[in-house]
Formats: sequence, structure tokens, C-alpha cells
Amino acid sequence: MEQKKYLRVRYVETDAQGIVHHATYPVWFEEGRSDFLRKIEMPYSQWEQCGYFASVVDLSIRYVKPAYYEDELQIITILERYNKRFVEFKYKVFNEEENLLAHGHTKHLIVDTDGQPYVMNDTFFQQLKSKVSEQ
Amino acid sequence: MEQKKYLRVRYVETDAQGIVHHATYPVWFEEGRSDFLRKIEMPYSQWEQCGYFASVVDLSIRYVKPAYYEDELQIITILERYNKRFVEFKYKVFNEEENLLAHGHTKHLIVDTDGQPYVMNDTFFQQLKSKVSEQ
Amino acid sequence: MEQKKYLRVRYVETDAQGIVHHATYPVWFEEGRSDFLRKIEMPYSQWEQCGYFASVVDLSIRYVKPAYYEDELQIITILERYNKRFVEFKYKVFNEEENLLAHGHTKHLIVDTDGQPYVMNDTFFQQLKSKVSEQ
Amino acid sequence: MEQKKYLRVRYVETDAQGIVHHATYPVWFEEGRSDFLRKIEMPYSQWEQCGYFASVVDLSIRYVKPAYYEDELQIITILERYNKRFVEFKYKVFNEEENLLAHGHTKHLIVDTDGQPYVMNDTFFQQLKSKVSEQ
Repeated sequence: MEQKKYLRVRYVETDAQGIVHHATYPVWFEEGRSDFLRKIEMPYSQWEQCGYFASVVDLSIRYVKPAYYEDELQIITILERYNKRFVEFKYKVFNEEENLLAHGHTKHLIVDTDGQPYVMNDTFFQQLKSKVSEQ
Repeated sequence: MEQKKYLRVRYVETDAQGIVHHATYPVWFEEGRSDFLRKIEMPYSQWEQCGYFASVVDLSIRYVKPAYYEDELQIITILERYNKRFVEFKYKVFNEEENLLAHGHTKHLIVDTDGQPYVMNDTFFQQLKSKVSEQ
Repeated sequence: MEQKKYLRVRYVETDAQGIVHHATYPVWFEEGRSDFLRKIEMPYSQWEQCGYFASVVDLSIRYVKPAYYEDELQIITILERYNKRFVEFKYKVFNEEENLLAHGHTKHLIVDTDGQPYVMNDTFFQQLKSKVSEQ
Repeated sequence: MEQKKYLRVRYVETDAQGIVHHATYPVWFEEGRSDFLRKIEMPYSQWEQCGYFASVVDLSIRYVKPAYYEDELQIITILERYNKRFVEFKYKVFNEEENLLAHGHTKHLIVDTDGQPYVMNDTFFQQLKSKVSEQ
């Protein structure tokens, strides 16, 4: 399943090459992921309130074309895999002309407040499963 | 009393105008402040361990000249005033040619973990006073 | 005249105190300003295409209450004063409960590509004046 | 060949989990890369003056352990491969206890001012080769 979020490039996100700095893309991926979870009515703030912190363990990005100030972008976020201990998302970033600017993925380990590996309880996991399948 | 910190401009801190983005300067001020407290042997991480959070309540910056990628800057940090509830710093940023690039100030209220106004205890305050006067 | 922009707090904008880092607010002010200029149909990217760069020369912020991850904020941007060489904006940031979180201002000098003081030509200035008065 | 850079964690780099935000690591990699090129006396600002822009086309990061405010880190930067059109770096991030916090790589395509693929001239490439081999 996937969700689409629109987002406009901020001036602060550009660098001296006149294009968006590459370290901005993980932030946009996070925005896509946050929006995805809000749309399925399980916002990430709720995850943390339940004691589930989604710690990023792996990130990759392929940069295809640059983005510029004021560009309106689409972030496509795909929930690729998940279980009680682990979540993986894929992302695609497009500009208004439907050009692919970048794509990538993040893997997240569920950890507790102390950063130790943790397991979603049945209630939380079943809720996530049903919300995802409703999409 | 004042302290000097050297710092080199990061590429990510530049923007599409080819100069450092103005929102970077509060970060450099924070770097100056952190370095100041480390040099008087009361690092800010210790403040938080003692339960004292220095919440920024006021910030001002005058921008005089731009900074560029790879410039080596001097941040001069001055502890302007302080008491058990409140700390104020002033800052000056210079480049290698000793040109003033910017100056400003920050005011900080001492708060507890919940963000409520808090008061340094005598031990902590006297330690701060003696460290500052040693400079 | 003023404009209102909605904006949701990003996770990356928070810090170890659990609240939004104070250096994020100048970025939100910039977002408010960018949105203001888009709404009056004179987007800032057009300013730069015409050779007018709005260089920040002065910034101040008063922080009243903290913002948290996922908060939906209102940024009120007010064009306070402007002439052919200079623009000044004021800003107010509110959360969903209509609490004032922060307020501040920025002053901008019009400069050319080389950062030298510059003057808007009549056409551009009259266009700005009429767009502003239409609001 | 490799170079080591020391770097202290900034408060702004932390997030509400109390640890460094994952989007900070590409910035540290860039710091490692910038430092590497300065140490071999071919600073990246010189690359751009010669018309060679090193555009990031690929990034990956594995996150092993978190970093915290005020940690002093070592960034190990390794020039893995390079030719006249392309540069690849690898990175390792360690804390003071010599724990590996993260590792990753970046690939860069040489482009011109307009972002088009470009080729280093012989003089520049031979200079780079000899500087690298001197290490």
C-alpha cells in the first residue's frame, strides 16, 4: 500500500549549487512516513506514546534529478514490509512535471525508551494490520 | 568574560544565494555557548543532568556580511548576565580577515524537565559563579 | 496586510528537550514569507529571477511556549513596511489551541547577485504595491 | 587512503528521542569528505572554482549505535574509487569509546555548473592522483 504527500521545497533546503542539498531527502522521506501513518490513523506520535520508537537502522537514496526552491514535490511512501519488531518503507520523490527526482528506502527497528529492541504487543500490531489492509 | 571558538562553514549551511543561510547563525551561537560552558568546566550536558534546562526565550541577530563555504570563523561568546533563574549571552562572529559578519544575543530561562521555571540550587550557582570568576 | 500559513512540525525539528529547536523558527518565518509572496502572486523565486535578492539583515524572536512533533501550527505573516530598497515582515506562530508560541520580525535589504545594495525598478515596485493593496 | 576528522555533536543535531537524528549523518559524511580534500590540499571549494561540482548520486547508511549531545566523534573517510567522471567515498563514525556508530558510502558524479556530466581535465586529474598517492 502507498500514500502520496505534497510538499514544497524550502529555501533553507537549497545549497550553494542552487539545488536542494542531498541531506534534505531523508527529512522528506520522514515527512512521507509521518504522513502515511497519520493517514492510516496511527500517527507516529501515538507509537511513541505506546512506547514504540521506530529507530532508523538502514537508509539508502538514489538521486536522479535535482529539486529547486519552490518546486512542489510528491513524496510517494510505500509500506514495504513490517512485523512486530521491524518496519520497512520505500519512497519515490517526483516534481510537478512527474519527473522522478530520487528514490530510496528506510528500515526501522522497534525499540523502547532506552533504545533496546522491543516487540509490538498484539493489540497494537493487529490495529496496524487492519489499518494497513483497509487502505 | 568571553570565550573564542573556531568553526568552519559546512556546505549544508549554504543556500541558493551561495552564502550561509541566516538560520545557521543561531546554531553557531549555540555552538559558541556550548563551547563556553565546556571551557569553564560546566558543560551544558551537566546542566541537564542536574535538571537545569536553559530554554531560549529571546534571540536577536544583526547580519553584517555574508559567510561562505569553508570559511574559518571565530565565534566570540560573552556571558553577559546571569542569576539563579536566567542566563544571557552575547555573540560576535568574525571571518579570517577579522571582518564582523554578525552579532546577537540569546536570553535563557532556567526550566525543569517539564518546562516550568526553575531555580538553580546554591551549590550549582556558586560553582557557576566561581568558574566564571576564574576566567 | 497579513497571510496565514498552516504547517506541521517535523520530527527533525525537535531536539533532545523533546520540543522544537529554537533555530527552526527563522525557517518557519521564511516559510510564512515565501507563502505570503506566493499568495500575492509575486513568489520569491520571481524576485530572484528579476535580480532582487532579499538579504536578511535583522532578525528577532520571542519564544513564549514550546511546539511539539506533529503540532499543526499557524504562521501569521505581516508585511510591516517596504520600499524599493528594503522590506520588513512580522510573524506570529500559534498552535491548534490558538496559543501564541512565538513572535518576531525580519528586515531585508534588497541586494543584487553580488550582494550589493540594489533598488527595485518602478515596474517591479508598482506591481508589488498593487498586489499588496489588492489584499 | 583514509583521513580522520574529529567532530563534536551539536545540540541542534539531536531529536526528541534524545539521540542524534539520522539525517545528520550525511552531513557528517560531507564534513569528513570536505576535511579529506582539504588535507590532501585540494579543498572542494577549489573543485568548484575549477568548474567541477561533485553531485551526490548515491548514499547509503547503516546505523549501529546512537550518538548523543557533546559526544566527540571520529569520522573516518576513505576515498574508495575515483576517475575523471566519478568519485566514491566510504565512511565510518566512531565515538570516544571506539564504538562504531554508523558506516556508509556516497557516490558522486562530476557535473558542470548546469548539472551536466563533466570530465576532469588532465591537469586537475593528475594533481588529484599525485595528492592521493602522497598520503
